[in-house]
Amino acid sequence: MEEKFARRMSTVHRSFIREILKVTADPEIISFAGGLPNPELFPVASMDEASRQVFAEIGASALQYSTTEGDAGLRKIISERYAKRGLEVDPDSILVTTGSQQILDIVAKVFLDKGDKVVIERPGYLGAIQAFSIFEPEFVTISLENDGPNLEELEAAFKDGAKCFYAVPNFQNPSGVSYSLEKRQAVAELLDKYDVLFIEDDPYGELRFMGEDMPSVYSFCKKPSILCGSFSKIAAPGFRIGWVVTEEKTIYDKLVVAKQASDLHTSTVAQAIMRRYMETNDIEAHVQLIKDRYGRQRACMVEMIGKYFPEGVTITEPEGGMFLWATLPEGVSAMDLFDVAIKEKVAFVPGRPFYVDGSGENTLRLNFSNSDEKRIEEGIKRLGNSIRSFLK
Amino acid sequence: MEEKFARRMSTVHRSFIREILKVTADPEIISFAGGLPNPELFPVASMDEASRQVFAEIGASALQYSTTEGDAGLRKIISERYAKRGLEVDPDSILVTTGSQQILDIVAKVFLDKGDKVVIERPGYLGAIQAFSIFEPEFVTISLENDGPNLEELEAAFKDGAKCFYAVPNFQNPSGVSYSLEKRQAVAELLDKYDVLFIEDDPYGELRFMGEDMPSVYSFCKKPSILCGSFSKIAAPGFRIGWVVTEEKTIYDKLVVAKQASDLHTSTVAQAIMRRYMETNDIEAHVQLIKDRYGRQRACMVEMIGKYFPEGVTITEPEGGMFLWATLPEGVSAMDLFDVAIKEKVAFVPGRPFYVDGSGENTLRLNFSNSDEKRIEEGIKRLGNSIRSFLK
Repeated sequence: MEEKFARRMSTVHRSFIREILKVTADPEIISFAGGLPNPELFPVASMDEASRQVFAEIGASALQYSTTEGDAGLRKIISERYAKRGLEVDPDSILVTTGSQQILDIVAKVFLDKGDKVVIERPGYLGAIQAFSIFEPEFVTISLENDGPNLEELEAAFKDGAKCFYAVPNFQNPSGVSYSLEKRQAVAELLDKYDVLFIEDDPYGELRFMGEDMPSVYSFCKKPSILCGSFSKIAAPGFRIGWVVTEEKTIYDKLVVAKQASDLHTSTVAQAIMRRYMETNDIEAHVQLIKDRYGRQRACMVEMIGKYFPEGVTITEPEGGMFLWATLPEGVSAMDLFDVAIKEKVAFVPGRPFYVDGSGENTLRLNFSNSDEKRIEEGIKRLGNSIRSFLK
Repeated sequence: MEEKFARRMSTVHRSFIREILKVTADPEIISFAGGLPNPELFPVASMDEASRQVFAEIGASALQYSTTEGDAGLRKIISERYAKRGLEVDPDSILVTTGSQQILDIVAKVFLDKGDKVVIERPGYLGAIQAFSIFEPEFVTISLENDGPNLEELEAAFKDGAKCFYAVPNFQNPSGVSYSLEKRQAVAELLDKYDVLFIEDDPYGELRFMGEDMPSVYSFCKKPSILCGSFSKIAAPGFRIGWVVTEEKTIYDKLVVAKQASDLHTSTVAQAIMRRYMETNDIEAHVQLIKDRYGRQRACMVEMIGKYFPEGVTITEPEGGMFLWATLPEGVSAMDLFDVAIKEKVAFVPGRPFYVDGSGENTLRLNFSNSDEKRIEEGIKRLGNSIRSFLK
């Protein structure tokens, strides 16, 4: 059979994280491995009510085929929410997608020829690495520092003929790092100078529980660029509704063609329920609830790491989002640590899959959104013990 | 901007049909252009009830991320329905997809290298042509006769090194043609003999209102093959839920990887509602309702064509599905006819987009699922007049 598969499939693998999630299904395991929002915060009753209204009021049309561009009312709501945060976006420059994962697929379809140079952060978002890999680009990775990408490396990559730069400037998955205002401006200038297409992925931007909101890199770009958003982290991921913004009409049109070929359009009924939910609920109050909870959990995790982790482990201290990133002493393998930790009934994601160059052996990702403070304390204690067993 | 796009985008265009649908939004136009199921038959009240049960009983888990493979209960239901029709399919060989359009995208990702020979029917399904085109295959088209593909052409194409054969053996879109039992067996033998991968698309198979149900070509294949199904035509398309069946584990695994890269998984909430609907309703009785209605509308359309179309126009007489196919006298352009007909307030789809070789100038597709008998009579009368204006 193998000889029948397309060449591209030899370089694309199942998500290592999703494989890990199968191991961690055991309820006794305290898992910091997933990337799941906390389901206790899902607005189940409000979604139920929104869904009843959709069936009662628009009925059959919510069950019919619909346009590739997406529900016009939903796109208007997305546009109005951007306006509140200071970004003017025409609803006609918004394309609704089947989760933000689909954006990566259609952007790759539209832009990537085999061998094109795609610049990503190191560590980088695994979903993007997977989606892009299908189109066989050459990845160029740039060190992520505590305030954003290393600018010398970035400029060198741009100079060397990069096609595009994919980045998650707010509370990045996996590292939790955010770009400083200075680096946002500097990145935008480099993008313009070298005419590199920018793809800004921002699923976590609204989940800031410390510090000040910052403008998107997108807002500083003078040349055509792409901004990705999602309802998954502020409402619920089970709808699979994301969106892509681009004010360059020629790009927008190509993305529509690529999406049409991919799945015709995003679920009409899912869009209708999400739109009604957004119209009839105070989403900003709901986002505040999420931020309060995640903020407490993040504070707890940082505190417990201070208490239970041995010397020599460093962490990022994210101001938002769902993840923090730990670096073990040189020579300690997070893969080996995983095997020990799972016996202690605690799980995390080893960092290596986030590095396309095979480095990152001594790094790991910890999710704080999906465990309460009691489990965070117990889990970090177990993990601290597991790490200690490698330092003797 | 153009120079930035991937090479593949130069050969992929917006669906001509979806462009036509914009023209036909005027309610005064009687449209046989769309491929829409009749929304009067959508089970709105039952879906509302199913949705209430989902929110009440499984709540948050219906809103969370879920597995790429799809809801296990829904896959079991799909498997049980195949069993009733005589096909044994393990639920673990079923992958839920975001509509059946997504199957075409992920199958292309998994199998098609640039230049691979893909055999399709002439005329062929436009969604497949679009999805495959992204991966730059060479299309080889085979004449579709009244009982299926021309077998000599098919064998010649297989001999010439075809990678796969994509076909819609039941009530094909656009032609309405179904394969005879003999041709099903003969096609399967040729596939086995030349070791060509078969992709059987079957969105309409359950909508047979005349004649006897026939086994799938898939069921005759001895080598690995792929069967595609969908809830769009038997329940409602707005959920975007299709599925792909393959009992070859290596293919299944690659399709899962490709789907994961495309959109992680299909909407959890849409799958949960569809599953609950299927569990708590008599779907077979509902399908019977659809068949009765479409059968009457098809009979009416054939009768009215006999009454109002001039001599020299031939049509297929489908035993199921949603479309029939008309061939105008040689030299009459269906594109030109479209312009005249639209002034008479009647619409259809000119056949040319269904031919990758640019032929089919004098052919057109007529949809009978989405108009009642009164509108069918009036629309066919108008269209007959429009055709006549070309024959003077």
